[in-house]
Parts: sequence; C-alpha cells; structure tokens
Amino acid sequence: MATLKDVAKETGLTVTTVSRVLNNRGYIGEETRQKVYDAMKKLNYQPNEVARSLSKQTTNTIGVIVPHIRHPYFAELISCIEAAANERKYKILLFNSGDRDEKELEFLEMCSSNRVAGVILCSGTVEVNQFEVLSVPVITIERNPEHATASVECDNLEGGRLAARHLIESGCRNLIHISGVYGTSMPADQRETGFVEVCEEHGIRHCELKTNEMQYKEGDYRGFIEEALRDHPEADGIFASSDLIAAQAIQVCARMGIAVPERLKIVGFDDVMIASLTTPAITTIHQPIREMAELALSLLMEAGAGRSVPVRTVLPVRIVKRES
Amino acid sequence: MATLKDVAKETGLTVTTVSRVLNNRGYIGEETRQKVYDAMKKLNYQPNEVARSLSKQTTNTIGVIVPHIRHPYFAELISCIEAAANERKYKILLFNSGDRDEKELEFLEMCSSNRVAGVILCSGTVEVNQFEVLSVPVITIERNPEHATASVECDNLEGGRLAARHLIESGCRNLIHISGVYGTSMPADQRETGFVEVCEEHGIRHCELKTNEMQYKEGDYRGFIEEALRDHPEADGIFASSDLIAAQAIQVCARMGIAVPERLKIVGFDDVMIASLTTPAITTIHQPIREMAELALSLLMEAGAGRSVPVRTVLPVRIVKRES
Repeated sequence: MATLKDVAKETGLTVTTVSRVLNNRGYIGEETRQKVYDAMKKLNYQPNEVARSLSKQTTNTIGVIVPHIRHPYFAELISCIEAAANERKYKILLFNSGDRDEKELEFLEMCSSNRVAGVILCSGTVEVNQFEVLSVPVITIERNPEHATASVECDNLEGGRLAARHLIESGCRNLIHISGVYGTSMPADQRETGFVEVCEEHGIRHCELKTNEMQYKEGDYRGFIEEALRDHPEADGIFASSDLIAAQAIQVCARMGIAVPERLKIVGFDDVMIASLTTPAITTIHQPIREMAELALSLLMEAGAGRSVPVRTVLPVRIVKRES
Repeated sequence: MATLKDVAKETGLTVTTVSRVLNNRGYIGEETRQKVYDAMKKLNYQPNEVARSLSKQTTNTIGVIVPHIRHPYFAELISCIEAAANERKYKILLFNSGDRDEKELEFLEMCSSNRVAGVILCSGTVEVNQFEVLSVPVITIERNPEHATASVECDNLEGGRLAARHLIESGCRNLIHISGVYGTSMPADQRETGFVEVCEEHGIRHCELKTNEMQYKEGDYRGFIEEALRDHPEADGIFASSDLIAAQAIQVCARMGIAVPERLKIVGFDDVMIASLTTPAITTIHQPIREMAELALSLLMEAGAGRSVPVRTVLPVRIVKRES
C-alpha cells in the first residue's frame, strides 16, 4: 500500500508538505496541491486512520453494547445510533453481550484498548464501578445510571400511566400487566409503578406478572401468557411491557379463541416495527428511540470535550392507538 | 493513561522485557511475570490496540455494510455476523448505507482508511470495480459477486420452487408472487425463476408483481398488496419474497375480509423473527442465516491469510410450515 513517503517521492515534495496538503494546514499553492492530489490518485494512496488515531490518542469510533441485536427494540436503537454517529463522522463498533456480565466487561475492555471516543451502553447491569477503568464517557440508554457519565431514559412511569388509562377508558375492568424481567432493577420497572398507580386511582382490579430471564433470553413468552390467561379468565385488558410480548399475546388469544380487541384489549410498549406488522396492529406506548439515540450522541460529544452534562435525562412518551 | 514505559519504570525492568511478558514471547521467569502483572494492575495499564494495529498494518476489525439495520432480515444477519466475529476475537464496525451508492463507497473508503481485516458487504450494487481500491477481502452476502473476493448466497432458485410446490400441494390454483425490487439484478431474483418454473410444470395460473424501490425503502407494501388483490380477486395463494411482505399481506387480507389460510395461503421468505410473531404465523422459506454469516467469516479469514477461496457458495434452504 502506498505511503505518505511514496507520494512525496512521486511529487518531489517533502513529506511535511504532503502532510500539510492532506491536513489542510498552512498556506499551500494551488499547483502544489494539485500535484499531491494527482500523485495520490496515481498511487492509490489511502490515508491511514490508524496512524492518525495513534497520534491523537483517540479514534472517531464509538463502542455500542447491546444485549440482543436481533430484538426489534435494539435493532431500531442501533439503527438510530448509527445514523446519529454517521452524521457526526463517527463510526460504531457493535457488541452483542447476550446480557452476560462477563461479556460486557470484556467489551468495555476492548473499547478501552481500542481507544474509542466513548461508549453507549444499552445492556445489563454490570457492576458499574468497573466503568472506572474507562477513561472515556459512558452513556447508558434505558439502564440504571450509577457511575455512568450520563443516562438517557424515556418516561417509563408516564408510559405505564398512559397504558392503564387507555385500557380503562376503553372499558376494561380487569387488567393484567406482563413485565419483562431483567434480574435487577431497571428504568423499565417504572412502567409497572405508573400502571398500578392509575389502576388504584380508578379502583380497577389489576395483577402484575413478571416473566423470567429464560423467557427474555429466548424471546418466547407464549407459554407464560397462555397460563396467565387460564389463571385469569376474567381479564379483559393486557398491558405488555414490550411490543414483542404484545405480539405473542395476540397469537395466544387467537389460539384460545379470545377476540382482540373485542373481548380483550392489548397495549404494548416501544412502538418498534413489529407493532405495526401484527394482525391486529398493536396499540402501544411510543418510545422516542431516535431522539434518545441523538441525545446519547450529543451527550457523548459534550462529555468527551470535557464539558459538564446532565447525569440523567428523561424524554417524553406518547400513546399510539392502532387496532389491538 | 499509563504507558508501557510507566509499567517498566514501576517494575525496574526494561520496556523490552515488559513487552515480552505482554506478548508472551521468549522465556520469562514466573516472578518477573507476576511483577509486571502487579504493576499493570496498580497503574491501571490498558494495552493500546491502536498502536499494535499500526505496527501490524491491520486491525482485528471487520467492516459490515448493510442497507437497513432495522429490517428484521438484516438485524438477524448482523447478530449472526457479530457472533461469528466475536468467536474469532474480531470486532465489527457497522455501517448503514440506506442502499445509497455514494454511502457504500464512502463506507468502503472508511473501512480502508481504518485498515479493517476485511469487509462483509450485504448492501446494494455499487459499481464493483470500485472495490479494487480495497486491498482486503470483500465477501458479499446475497449480492451479486462480480469483483468481490467471494459471495455467499442461499439457494434462492430452490426456495422459489419449494414455495410454489407447497402452495400447489395445498390446493392453490391461482398464484401471485410479490418480489422485492432492488433496482438491479440480485441473487434473490432467482426466487421468481424457481416459482415460475414449478407453476409452468403444473400448469398453474401465476402472475409476478414487482414492488418498487420506494416501497422497499419505506418497508410499506400494504397499498401495493391491496391493489394486487383487487386486480386478482381469483388469487388463492401468495408467495412473498420476504417475511416482511408476508406479514403485511396477512394484515391486508384481514382488512379485506379474506381468511388466511382458508381462502388464501401465504408463503414468505427468510424465516426471521417476524415470521413466528404474526397471527397466523408465517409459513416460510428458511434462509440459513447463521451458517451464511459463519461461512462469510471463514472465507474472510482464509482469503486474508492469502489462501484461495471459492468465489461463490450457495447454501441450502428449507420450508418451515407454520399457519399461513
């Protein structure tokens, strides 16, 4: 591969001059500039970002750690983070932790060795004091913020309230909440709090069911939902804590002969692609995923530049009424 | 951040000795080794992968370029590529092209500047002679192979045949094929060829409809499907060239009062998460995505080591019968 030296040799200029053209530094005559460009083209010279990164002691790369790439929520989130990074001329290194703590630590170390400009962590609940080995900003999305530089969340509490209110206003009197389980406490737990609050306010019967880790990892909640509906034949409304769970609730209802939305209504959470692809399409709480990704990038840039940033930012949610 | 020099100073050893411990080169006594580890821990020393990459003139990073991260097929593919890369201690740099040629070129150049070990290209149909600027292997997945180092495809032709045969065996006599359009020729075009071949063999009426680029980019085929079903009220079977299209066909049928599968049967393609989440769940052609990702990584490693690799590999598909 052609080097800076080869370009210099080809043009008869010094390496310093060629480097000044490449980096747009100092005054360079038009003729010289053209000569360098011509030689670069002829030799197929490619600037070496690795060398540049070494001298700057950082890269224009951001580490992104998620638990499950194929999960529709994270696929959407990754897509939005990539777009926000690309706009700022940053690249993303993507890691899939499968929610295993040891993988998260390994990836954080890889991020550090590779001198990323920062990390966006959307996974797990690693012993966060481990972050202290990182000398770069760590922004969490929908994860507990202790020890991270800053956290970005959606208004999970209000989301739970909106879901309960919608079901009650639609005539439901016996509600079930099915929550994802993540082992430890998470911002998403607030969805249940908001849901319970509104049910109590209106004197509506409600029950909260927690799925287990195995179901979350496999992404299969069907057996759990069927059991829940057998145990609670009086249920006429379900608030599922993800669209993935809501989609499977629709399937279980179809198999059990329960008409949705006539006999039982379902509200999901996230508003990702799957919500608009089921039959009936899912009424859900919209998480502002694009805005959350944008904000995470901005916070990362600000913190990286040494400026102070808010440690916790909560963005608003809204209900999207479809057919379920 | 602590450097190799700091570790050497702390231990009283030379930089060369410390480096030998880190790289496991030559004979080092146990006591010396322990001394270096202790100092590394004390100083919170992190090896600098950037420096290592510069001296090796390559990185253990692979560029992955896809058209749409959030599309369930690509989300699954990325997940499998990440897993295969991680097993080999490689990282992935992820780029979303939106199928824009200029973005693909920009990303290929970024891959080159960042000295990736190779590129896995799952996007578009860039003027492939542009690849020649890359001095690393380029493996395509489900894209036309010209000028790439190697291409990995699934057996699209057989997939089309399997879909048509299944519909005909299930009693359908008026078939529609809805294909994704991608502007130019693609391996997926073979799905239609296989479908038509079997329809002709059995003397079954068939018609092939191509969606347009706008529908592909927006991921919304509903208007198109509705029109197709109005134009062809006799249709009793649809072969959709993706599960995404099949899911929307189910929605359109529900709205039009067409019972699936009783009055009209639907077969998708890909077998990604969405196929098992719709109501009814989608009967589909399984693409061996995990095996394709595994193979792409192996080919990349082989080609990177200077060994000769097959230019085109086609992996088998199978039908997964669900409810549609």
